[in-house]
Amino acid sequence: MKTLTLDQVDDLALGATLLGTGGGGDPYVARLMLRQAISTYGPVGIVDARELPADGLVMTVAVVGAPTVLLEKIPAGTEFVAAIEALASYLGRAPVALMPIEVGGFNTLVPMAVAAEMGLPVVDADGMRRAFPQVEMTVFTLAGIKASPMSVADEKGNLCVFETNTNQLGETLVRGAVMSLTLANAFSSYSMNASSVIQHAITGSVTYCMELGRLLAAVQRGEEGAYGRFLSASDGRIIFSGVISDVHRETTEGFSKGTVTIESRDNAERVMQVAIQNEFLVAWENGEPVVTVPDLICILDAETAIPINTETLGYGQRVNVVGLPCAPEWHQEGMLEVAGPRAFGFDLDYKGWLT
Amino acid sequence: MKTLTLDQVDDLALGATLLGTGGGGDPYVARLMLRQAISTYGPVGIVDARELPADGLVMTVAVVGAPTVLLEKIPAGTEFVAAIEALASYLGRAPVALMPIEVGGFNTLVPMAVAAEMGLPVVDADGMRRAFPQVEMTVFTLAGIKASPMSVADEKGNLCVFETNTNQLGETLVRGAVMSLTLANAFSSYSMNASSVIQHAITGSVTYCMELGRLLAAVQRGEEGAYGRFLSASDGRIIFSGVISDVHRETTEGFSKGTVTIESRDNAERVMQVAIQNEFLVAWENGEPVVTVPDLICILDAETAIPINTETLGYGQRVNVVGLPCAPEWHQEGMLEVAGPRAFGFDLDYKGWLT
Repeated sequence: MKTLTLDQVDDLALGATLLGTGGGGDPYVARLMLRQAISTYGPVGIVDARELPADGLVMTVAVVGAPTVLLEKIPAGTEFVAAIEALASYLGRAPVALMPIEVGGFNTLVPMAVAAEMGLPVVDADGMRRAFPQVEMTVFTLAGIKASPMSVADEKGNLCVFETNTNQLGETLVRGAVMSLTLANAFSSYSMNASSVIQHAITGSVTYCMELGRLLAAVQRGEEGAYGRFLSASDGRIIFSGVISDVHRETTEGFSKGTVTIESRDNAERVMQVAIQNEFLVAWENGEPVVTVPDLICILDAETAIPINTETLGYGQRVNVVGLPCAPEWHQEGMLEVAGPRAFGFDLDYKGWLT
Repeated sequence: MKTLTLDQVDDLALGATLLGTGGGGDPYVARLMLRQAISTYGPVGIVDARELPADGLVMTVAVVGAPTVLLEKIPAGTEFVAAIEALASYLGRAPVALMPIEVGGFNTLVPMAVAAEMGLPVVDADGMRRAFPQVEMTVFTLAGIKASPMSVADEKGNLCVFETNTNQLGETLVRGAVMSLTLANAFSSYSMNASSVIQHAITGSVTYCMELGRLLAAVQRGEEGAYGRFLSASDGRIIFSGVISDVHRETTEGFSKGTVTIESRDNAERVMQVAIQNEFLVAWENGEPVVTVPDLICILDAETAIPINTETLGYGQRVNVVGLPCAPEWHQEGMLEVAGPRAFGFDLDYKGWLT
């Protein structure tokens, strides 16, 4: 078992925010929560699922809702343990470990903080190796693993438990509940045995976060050749550079939705538009799709190389748009139905990753 | 302990439909379910809560949603036991008896059918002695008893459990879930000990249903003086007679909402309008309120004396509109906030009951 110590939190947060592809929650509060938890309870154990008993219960915890709300409404902290405990009580079983359900600035870090508090390790795996806005958008759905039963908890002690036949109906019910609560709530889903994690999760995604975070931190420090090493390790490429000339963003239907427009500074005729639903979904250059879900679109500040989340995009920011291929585990039957452009309502084929 | 036998089902259904004040669900399917259950499992025990152990758990079951939907979507039957079992499992306790949460053609009968199946008695009590469209509209809310935790189950095996700080938030979450499911689902709420039923429920409401049903059946058979005896026993009066000239009804926001207009046949200038939200809420004659919630407005076919539910109102029906006073248990602090005209958004004072 490895451990996550205080001095690794920044790399983890940076990598997770990058792979959050605009979503997954702002890392600021989660980083404070995680630092506090490690200081109070000690380092968090990071385990491979094969180190757990095969029939041990692995549970997930995340924030669900609109990331814009999370910027202003700081979690109480109690709702995450409440969501896990309500679901564990419904299942009649206690977890042996927690696991992030997605990678994101908030949603990778919060399971670590909660695990520290609960005295549990965290599995080095997740269900997306990126962030996605909807409950059913995981490789677990592809494997036929149910998100259900699921729990939602708010900061005031309100609780919901849902058991559904399909992950899509789970998404509908959870989204409805979150809209009636406070649009950013604690959420536990996809409870499964360690044996299912071994078989179906995206293994190593926490380590991958930390590694990319470490490489990106070198870029931020201005180390020579660092951008190249970062892009080479992530298989990424800069697909556009320019200035944000317009941000359209609204909190609607339980999501942050909108579009960001970026204009090239070198060539006035080159314009990139990126569609948002909590995360960046599709990037078009002059109307032509360049990168589409499930591949990753990341927007980095051109000067500081800080990943900019959808909720902090602003007019006039100078940015690099980086495309990254999705985790190879996504490339299996059903990927496009669950997480391709059409799953988000775009009348668009998956672009595929150009290496 | 009294029992409910097959030959009492019709009186019970008739009285419950009357007191459903336009809502509470059409009795047709519930009557078949109850007949079937009694035939299979034997008569249902009807108990006074004082016959139960004081700390015994009493649970409720009902259909929640829009009654219009219930006309076409017949319950599978399994969802009612599923709702109770999910909630009992969440509570970690098993019920010693069931109780109707409201009086209505469906919602008085279905707990009896489910109780027969589960081998439990039914308490001769409820929380409204009429039907109301929203979860929090009970005398239990006046007593500070929580609707929470609550469960919702559909006919396909989908389940929700909610635990909320207020009954109003419970209503919001349940309504949202029902709108995402099938708009008419099984619902369990207001679980409480027998001692709370004794203190706070409206006692004798099942017997009251049967008694009014028996008297109304005599009206239907055309027995001399029967209408007078029925009105005298119920403290009711005919507030309008006429022909339905217009029905506006839509299924919206998880309810059936609308207005019915009735014109007098004797005096063309007299018009009654009745506002609908699942139940009949307010009756105006020529713009002047005559009866308002929480008092009851019942619309009876003029010829057959069959109570007409909101979902079966139709143009050209000749009807008598009967007003009945609400159960005296409603007249306590908080009544108007929970179930007066303003609780439904009418800018209108409670009319009070004119004897």
